[in-house]
Amino acid sequence: MFLSNPYATDLVMEYLQKELIENGNLRDVLEHYPSQQNALCEEFSKALHVKSENLFIGNGAIEIIQALMQQVVDKKAVVPIPTFSSYYEFAKQDSQVVYYALDQQNDYKFNTNHFIDFIQNENPDTVILINPNNPNGAYLKLDEMRTILKALKDVKQIIIDESFIHFAYDDEAMELIDSTPLFYEFNNVIVVKSLSKDFGVAGVRLGYALMKEELVKGLLSKGYLWNLNGIAETILKFFSQKQFQNRYEIIRKNYIIECQNFFKGLENIPGIYVYPSQANFALIKLPSYIPSSLFVAYLLYEYGIYVRTANDKIGLDGEYVRIAVRRAEENEQMLNAIGLVMEQF
Amino acid sequence: MFLSNPYATDLVMEYLQKELIENGNLRDVLEHYPSQQNALCEEFSKALHVKSENLFIGNGAIEIIQALMQQVVDKKAVVPIPTFSSYYEFAKQDSQVVYYALDQQNDYKFNTNHFIDFIQNENPDTVILINPNNPNGAYLKLDEMRTILKALKDVKQIIIDESFIHFAYDDEAMELIDSTPLFYEFNNVIVVKSLSKDFGVAGVRLGYALMKEELVKGLLSKGYLWNLNGIAETILKFFSQKQFQNRYEIIRKNYIIECQNFFKGLENIPGIYVYPSQANFALIKLPSYIPSSLFVAYLLYEYGIYVRTANDKIGLDGEYVRIAVRRAEENEQMLNAIGLVMEQF
Repeated sequence: MFLSNPYATDLVMEYLQKELIENGNLRDVLEHYPSQQNALCEEFSKALHVKSENLFIGNGAIEIIQALMQQVVDKKAVVPIPTFSSYYEFAKQDSQVVYYALDQQNDYKFNTNHFIDFIQNENPDTVILINPNNPNGAYLKLDEMRTILKALKDVKQIIIDESFIHFAYDDEAMELIDSTPLFYEFNNVIVVKSLSKDFGVAGVRLGYALMKEELVKGLLSKGYLWNLNGIAETILKFFSQKQFQNRYEIIRKNYIIECQNFFKGLENIPGIYVYPSQANFALIKLPSYIPSSLFVAYLLYEYGIYVRTANDKIGLDGEYVRIAVRRAEENEQMLNAIGLVMEQF
Repeated sequence: MFLSNPYATDLVMEYLQKELIENGNLRDVLEHYPSQQNALCEEFSKALHVKSENLFIGNGAIEIIQALMQQVVDKKAVVPIPTFSSYYEFAKQDSQVVYYALDQQNDYKFNTNHFIDFIQNENPDTVILINPNNPNGAYLKLDEMRTILKALKDVKQIIIDESFIHFAYDDEAMELIDSTPLFYEFNNVIVVKSLSKDFGVAGVRLGYALMKEELVKGLLSKGYLWNLNGIAETILKFFSQKQFQNRYEIIRKNYIIECQNFFKGLENIPGIYVYPSQANFALIKLPSYIPSSLFVAYLLYEYGIYVRTANDKIGLDGEYVRIAVRRAEENEQMLNAIGLVMEQF
């Protein structure tokens, strides 16, 4: 199941339909070379309200993660676990990855002071923070993040991955949160952002990062010249359009409500423990007598619903499943099916 | 002007129209994660008749060139010039690039023995051979290539870039040439292939390489997990279809004839020297009293035709212009316009 907002896919597809199919621009976009990295950054930086020299646009966030882990990490990176595996799988061969185990008793949420102590003891050059975290969805508010960053000014670089931040909220207004202010406040911050999840276009491959100008220059000296395809470039242009932004904001907020309703529905199913999430997925823990692989197989074969076991994640010990939130009607079906499956055991 | 076969773009667009637009699969292809690298290689290796463990698929050939120059070149690479600039611009910081200057007197063609001597003296770990070469289009036949490879068995790796090989031919049957046999004959060969030029879809970002299994594994350990977008993956599938292959072959051969006719037309324009090309572009030398920048500006402003000066290419000294071959009617217009511009001087 894709970790993406299907309503946002609707919106992007509507715009692509108009821009590429009805206006007959699809051929142009596929035949011609896409714009080069620096031209794209120049244009997209305005929509993001950042300086173009701090922007790096990637063929999906994964290309950026790869570049950072291979070329920016120096000797030692701390990665909290459980988390997105590419942060340790793509670590540079001669670098060390130290895991910081999030505490199950604390719902895998960050204990800010404990984490700061850990980092100060380990003295790494790079710290990774995924906010909200994947696979559990725990969210660090901006002021907690600021507390961490203030204490860790001496760390060479702190990578904040905000791939799921569009699904988080600080209060019921649910305004868009992003770490751009933190980026300009602390000079060791790197922000990584996937656009696959919130805009629902994983097949397009589109992400970006904010980083110091010297880091951007370092990466560009190694390549990344034409790393975006024509469809991705077309979508980048939408982000500058006020009408698109406004419509997206409504869709985003509605989907957050849908996510939180779904999580409440899950909590009501006896036997399932749901970790608090401000992402668009929930990590659930099954009773130890229900193998997560069996649970997943049951859901797939009986109800055609695909969810993912999270047992392979380093840092998770037990029977875990990650469930992505889809459209309202599909979520309703999922809740029913999960309830029925749980009754089988 | 794009260095691509516009008739092939027609064909790919016809297939995409059917597969994505009429069959309604566009959304699926953009919403879902694309297949991972190893799954793509597994599938595409059959169409290429190579072993899947030797295949590496890139987000355009440029991603592969970047990976090779940054991660595979050891200490010293020899790059013949003039050539495609990324081969020296993206060289690893602590590696050395040695230029082998192709001889203008010999139309920038390879002098096989001279080149072998040069390499044996320099003793590099990596040799780059672009065949046909860009920007001049000079083509080394497979048996000349074999002579070079036999003599250079001790070089750690020889990168053969065949991005324009679909426009080359050994005789009037114009069968498709490729270095797969050389790859399996010599264990130091790496083949790089852009698919942007021959299939006319630069905006899609699609290329591949053949290399030793250990090199593929080395790259995959660093990332390249989801580096292809959904449109690129869709096009990869076409290559396995016999009907697509057959139609492409007809288009390819016709376009070669068109290219060669265009080059003959250029040769007939007084004052222009045309370097022999088996690519889909021609490098021309203007008389020294015609600045290439003026020539290019003239063509653009008077006739709306865009050609590219090649004066920025390292290894070219004089007034050079590279002209890409387009459709028959456009080529006719170009020839007329170039003839008229030349009469102005």
